[in-house]
Amino acid sequence: MAMADLVYPGAVHTRLHHSLGAYHLMCNALAELERKGIAITHEEKQGAKIAILLHDIGHGPYSHALEKILIEHADHEKISLLIMEKINEQLSGRLQLAIDIFNGVYIKRFLHQLISGQLDVDRMDYLIRDSFFTGVSEGVIGYDRIIKMMTVHDGELMVEEKGIYSIEKFLVSRRFMYWQVYLHKTVLCAEKMLVRIIRRAKEIKATAPSEILNKFLNPVFSSLPISDTLDDFCQLDDYDIMCAIKKWAEHPDRILSFLCRAMINRKLLKIKFSAVPFADSEIEVIKEKASLISGIALKEINNLVFTGEAVNKTYNIDEDHIRILFKNGHVKNISEVDDPLINQTLFTPIKKFYICYPEGIVS
Amino acid sequence: MAMADLVYPGAVHTRLHHSLGAYHLMCNALAELERKGIAITHEEKQGAKIAILLHDIGHGPYSHALEKILIEHADHEKISLLIMEKINEQLSGRLQLAIDIFNGVYIKRFLHQLISGQLDVDRMDYLIRDSFFTGVSEGVIGYDRIIKMMTVHDGELMVEEKGIYSIEKFLVSRRFMYWQVYLHKTVLCAEKMLVRIIRRAKEIKATAPSEILNKFLNPVFSSLPISDTLDDFCQLDDYDIMCAIKKWAEHPDRILSFLCRAMINRKLLKIKFSAVPFADSEIEVIKEKASLISGIALKEINNLVFTGEAVNKTYNIDEDHIRILFKNGHVKNISEVDDPLINQTLFTPIKKFYICYPEGIVS
Amino acid sequence: MAMADLVYPGAVHTRLHHSLGAYHLMCNALAELERKGIAITHEEKQGAKIAILLHDIGHGPYSHALEKILIEHADHEKISLLIMEKINEQLSGRLQLAIDIFNGVYIKRFLHQLISGQLDVDRMDYLIRDSFFTGVSEGVIGYDRIIKMMTVHDGELMVEEKGIYSIEKFLVSRRFMYWQVYLHKTVLCAEKMLVRIIRRAKEIKATAPSEILNKFLNPVFSSLPISDTLDDFCQLDDYDIMCAIKKWAEHPDRILSFLCRAMINRKLLKIKFSAVPFADSEIEVIKEKASLISGIALKEINNLVFTGEAVNKTYNIDEDHIRILFKNGHVKNISEVDDPLINQTLFTPIKKFYICYPEGIVS
Amino acid sequence: MAMADLVYPGAVHTRLHHSLGAYHLMCNALAELERKGIAITHEEKQGAKIAILLHDIGHGPYSHALEKILIEHADHEKISLLIMEKINEQLSGRLQLAIDIFNGVYIKRFLHQLISGQLDVDRMDYLIRDSFFTGVSEGVIGYDRIIKMMTVHDGELMVEEKGIYSIEKFLVSRRFMYWQVYLHKTVLCAEKMLVRIIRRAKEIKATAPSEILNKFLNPVFSSLPISDTLDDFCQLDDYDIMCAIKKWAEHPDRILSFLCRAMINRKLLKIKFSAVPFADSEIEVIKEKASLISGIALKEINNLVFTGEAVNKTYNIDEDHIRILFKNGHVKNISEVDDPLINQTLFTPIKKFYICYPEGIVS
Repeated sequence: MAMADLVYPGAVHTRLHHSLGAYHLMCNALAELERKGIAITHEEKQGAKIAILLHDIGHGPYSHALEKILIEHADHEKISLLIMEKINEQLSGRLQLAIDIFNGVYIKRFLHQLISGQLDVDRMDYLIRDSFFTGVSEGVIGYDRIIKMMTVHDGELMVEEKGIYSIEKFLVSRRFMYWQVYLHKTVLCAEKMLVRIIRRAKEIKATAPSEILNKFLNPVFSSLPISDTLDDFCQLDDYDIMCAIKKWAEHPDRILSFLCRAMINRKLLKIKFSAVPFADSEIEVIKEKASLISGIALKEINNLVFTGEAVNKTYNIDEDHIRILFKNGHVKNISEVDDPLINQTLFTPIKKFYICYPEGIVS
Repeated sequence: MAMADLVYPGAVHTRLHHSLGAYHLMCNALAELERKGIAITHEEKQGAKIAILLHDIGHGPYSHALEKILIEHADHEKISLLIMEKINEQLSGRLQLAIDIFNGVYIKRFLHQLISGQLDVDRMDYLIRDSFFTGVSEGVIGYDRIIKMMTVHDGELMVEEKGIYSIEKFLVSRRFMYWQVYLHKTVLCAEKMLVRIIRRAKEIKATAPSEILNKFLNPVFSSLPISDTLDDFCQLDDYDIMCAIKKWAEHPDRILSFLCRAMINRKLLKIKFSAVPFADSEIEVIKEKASLISGIALKEINNLVFTGEAVNKTYNIDEDHIRILFKNGHVKNISEVDDPLINQTLFTPIKKFYICYPEGIVS
Repeated sequence: MAMADLVYPGAVHTRLHHSLGAYHLMCNALAELERKGIAITHEEKQGAKIAILLHDIGHGPYSHALEKILIEHADHEKISLLIMEKINEQLSGRLQLAIDIFNGVYIKRFLHQLISGQLDVDRMDYLIRDSFFTGVSEGVIGYDRIIKMMTVHDGELMVEEKGIYSIEKFLVSRRFMYWQVYLHKTVLCAEKMLVRIIRRAKEIKATAPSEILNKFLNPVFSSLPISDTLDDFCQLDDYDIMCAIKKWAEHPDRILSFLCRAMINRKLLKIKFSAVPFADSEIEVIKEKASLISGIALKEINNLVFTGEAVNKTYNIDEDHIRILFKNGHVKNISEVDDPLINQTLFTPIKKFYICYPEGIVS
Repeated sequence: MAMADLVYPGAVHTRLHHSLGAYHLMCNALAELERKGIAITHEEKQGAKIAILLHDIGHGPYSHALEKILIEHADHEKISLLIMEKINEQLSGRLQLAIDIFNGVYIKRFLHQLISGQLDVDRMDYLIRDSFFTGVSEGVIGYDRIIKMMTVHDGELMVEEKGIYSIEKFLVSRRFMYWQVYLHKTVLCAEKMLVRIIRRAKEIKATAPSEILNKFLNPVFSSLPISDTLDDFCQLDDYDIMCAIKKWAEHPDRILSFLCRAMINRKLLKIKFSAVPFADSEIEVIKEKASLISGIALKEINNLVFTGEAVNKTYNIDEDHIRILFKNGHVKNISEVDDPLINQTLFTPIKKFYICYPEGIVS
């Protein structure tokens, strides 16, 4: 959960926990579908289980927070795939079915949808797990009931009609967790600062204590095709980043050391949310004050004063849909179900604008 | 939970558990308000705690299911009040403050609102408790966070602005629990059958094994002012009802014995929901078939075939509101908050129509 | 748990919960044994599951507390067996394997040992369940680990060597639950009072509101062979008993009404424990005082003043043993394992003597 | 928990969690003692709470595993004290009472005993917490009941007589957690390897990526009085160690790189337990084989083949005792209570001998 433990100290669970949990839910989901008479071969079950176990293996240090920062041209899904392919070679092709399922090219589409859809076991696991470890009980979802309501129709994963309110509840929980945890303003601020630390280090060619990290701080290296740098990338972890930040807290560059010290001593930048973009004039005033206070030149102050958008896509209307199978055999996307109980706002992405700036600037 | 254990076998928790739980939440809520600087005297705290401990003491056997059936002219709140007044006499007026708070006449309104409002500790306790014992995890609410967000403004209980989504989540959970548990069709059917059993017993003057229950089956007695029958009422409990049902399963009246056997052997009537009222013609057809199948005369078949409405008032727009206190000092009712994230349908009561009828009637 | 909710109000869970829980553990245990290569056919698995589901079906009202009181010549295991045999007839012998396993005559002894041994799934379920519902966390056992350590050797259920301390922990938990819950002095007292209520009712030929119960209060009927009275027995439940107690609270017999009122108003007899039997002289003094206070004749005061023994057999050295399979292939009974860590006192039954008497007698 | 997550992947909870948990239990314990009429001033309560919050602040990286390895002349308690004294200076003496309580010089001894005794809130928190995060349910203790049984007599912390079996259960749980978790053979092996990595790095003057760690790898520096190196020590954390291990996995020294690679790839040394010390001849044989296999000279093979003792002091008969206050006013140490139920072996330290060696040596 990248920096979420700065706000929720309990949130120290790891990607290994999540992978095992999602695997567990996959086993349950497959068993449920089989109980309903869906044919799934032993190989397909194994493939789906392998795929979910490995689905996040391409994540680098601080996962989403540094995604596409250290490696510029590949997101974690692409890297997961590359790693799976590498293992597949070593195992003489025994991972091929898992890869096909992961990629979404396998004929039984529902297997892919269990791994990567809007109601997959990945999301179910992380919502319930993050809810537990943060203590944000509003994130609890009825994962066992949702799994009991799953079925397959025309080769696609569906939810039975009577599970419709469980799905709405799942989406409400998800939206809640986004605002309360994943996009919590302090968490967001810390993650954006982390990005700026790495960018600044690259810019001024600061050296990290870790030689592996140094490679990725080199812009030439980090923009190589990922296939050329995969072995190195796999050796990179949170330790490398945090050791660098600890070292750079003493770096002569004032911007880099300011950001690193702020992180280590948990004296983060301030952050403010707004429903509309911040006015340029307002941003200018804040930048000037920040420059004055920090002694950092105005032209470089955008390392300490910056704006951006946080978007909560509870449900993505453009992605593969959550399908409801009605008793009469009709199928509808959840967003098209004509039921006054379903909150239509769940299907609209909500955007908030933020500005980060150093403490001491009244605004 | 009356008959809910017929569907959720875990739901055997008692009113005593709920009263202790609501008392616990009251203690937490009072402590939180004090932390925020709200003045509450020792006597007021004691009064509020007594009031919540006793708030449900007026419930009779099978609580809501038989409310106003055994005692016709008083609901459980009125009876709770009468019992408190009786104890108050015995304790020389030491319960007076608790009674004033319970009644809503005490000057500090927020104390009453903690006991009986749309966001009281009563509802918080039963939602989380019923969710736990039924295993319906969608009913989980963030009760500790809601309590942390409570405050008092102008003498009224309010929720701080940043708690707004927790409130929405609370309402979604509440709506969910109504459809999934409290108004679950099998639960509803069993409760309506229970009502018909008591009514039929009264009608044909069946005698119960329990003498106390016999008193309340006498229409003259059961329509006396509750103050005259309170002592007897307090001796009545689930045991009296269930012993009677066991006995009446062998009663010569075919209607009474049919309903009682159906209850004991868990072979309940069938029930069907509809968004619109059932057509008279449809009801007639079902009644005729039921009469044929059961051998019970058409004029009496309404004991076995009957319709009604189930209303889910997640939030009652006519009652005392949930008030949100904004950072700028403004106060708004939750139903008037202009936030696209708040699902407006939560504030509209939803009605479903049902029909119950014996098994074996294809419809 | 009979009367345990008088002390632990949470302990309202039912025999149905326990049966489902024990069934769940049976499924886990069978799966674990299969994983270890033990051959178990589909029919054997089904048989073992049926047997555990029905193992307690012969329990009457207030289970252990009234065992052999209402039905004098049969314990609950014998009655369970009779009921299974009856169902077996109705199902044309399809329960035969379950019955053979339950009876311990089936060739694969370990199946019986899983149901009825000193480390069976029955005990595991009730320890963890009663611990949970009473809140006595000292009763928590590592049931999943114990199941993981189970194996079969020479056809007998065994525990692998490395599970030895889990077994000791299980026995310590069990001993703890006995003293803290099952033999808790208030629980014990209430259960003994319940026995005396039934005995007194029989003696003075008091009539119960329930006709079924009346049959069993007739000494001629209750000493008939159980096979003759089984149908009636199956209709008897807690409701019949409690309705009778409520009625008898007003009975003209002073002893019966005293005991029944004491139960209903939770003003139980006092109870005292002692490591040695109470002296006759001490008992006499208490009886005289009790007679004086209560106005009940000395010759009948033994209904209100009585003594007995509470025995905690944490491990019964005469029953089928818990066997440990050592890595070197040797097998030892847990009580014979030569390990200083194993507390030998666990294998000795502990006896406490108690005396019950009415309140108001200083002693 | 140092290296325990290599065996129990859930065990990633932190010292911060533990400190907050112990603080919570301290609050409960103080409230309970006050309820029993023990006089405790506001300042004393604050002092005890501060002391427990800071009691572990002196732990360095990998806590117990590297204790006295990086800093040779001070254990974590001494360092905690030094840090508290430093804060005390900064806060003009406002921590003095907390320090006196921590040191055990404050007149009300029971406050110190709550922090550092054989039944302190520290142990209670870590047992229940480690049990939860490892999933070893045998470690569950009845901490709330133990706290309810606490009292003070003659200024000393005591446990009421009726809590005696809860104490025995606490000791059994503690012993269990030691063998199952803290002294689990794989955990022990990993921790001993960690020690050898640091020692080897010092010996061959390997440089770490972290400059702070480099200071402590210098034998002159690490044997300075801790007061001279405290500021540096406070900057040291797990990140420095793990980054070094990652780097040293490629170190030219074959011993250092062997151990570091073994750690990172979780290909640990093998470990064997024995009730008696390993014979010199056996050790010699293993060393020779190991030298042969690894190509490391026999005189240096003791970095890869080494023996030691693991001692489980469930209860330390030489430390401040757990005192039982009997109803008759007598006081006894738990180890002197003459009750056959109390397992006397709990008071005897148990020693196991271990030998670690590289894989591939049949033994």
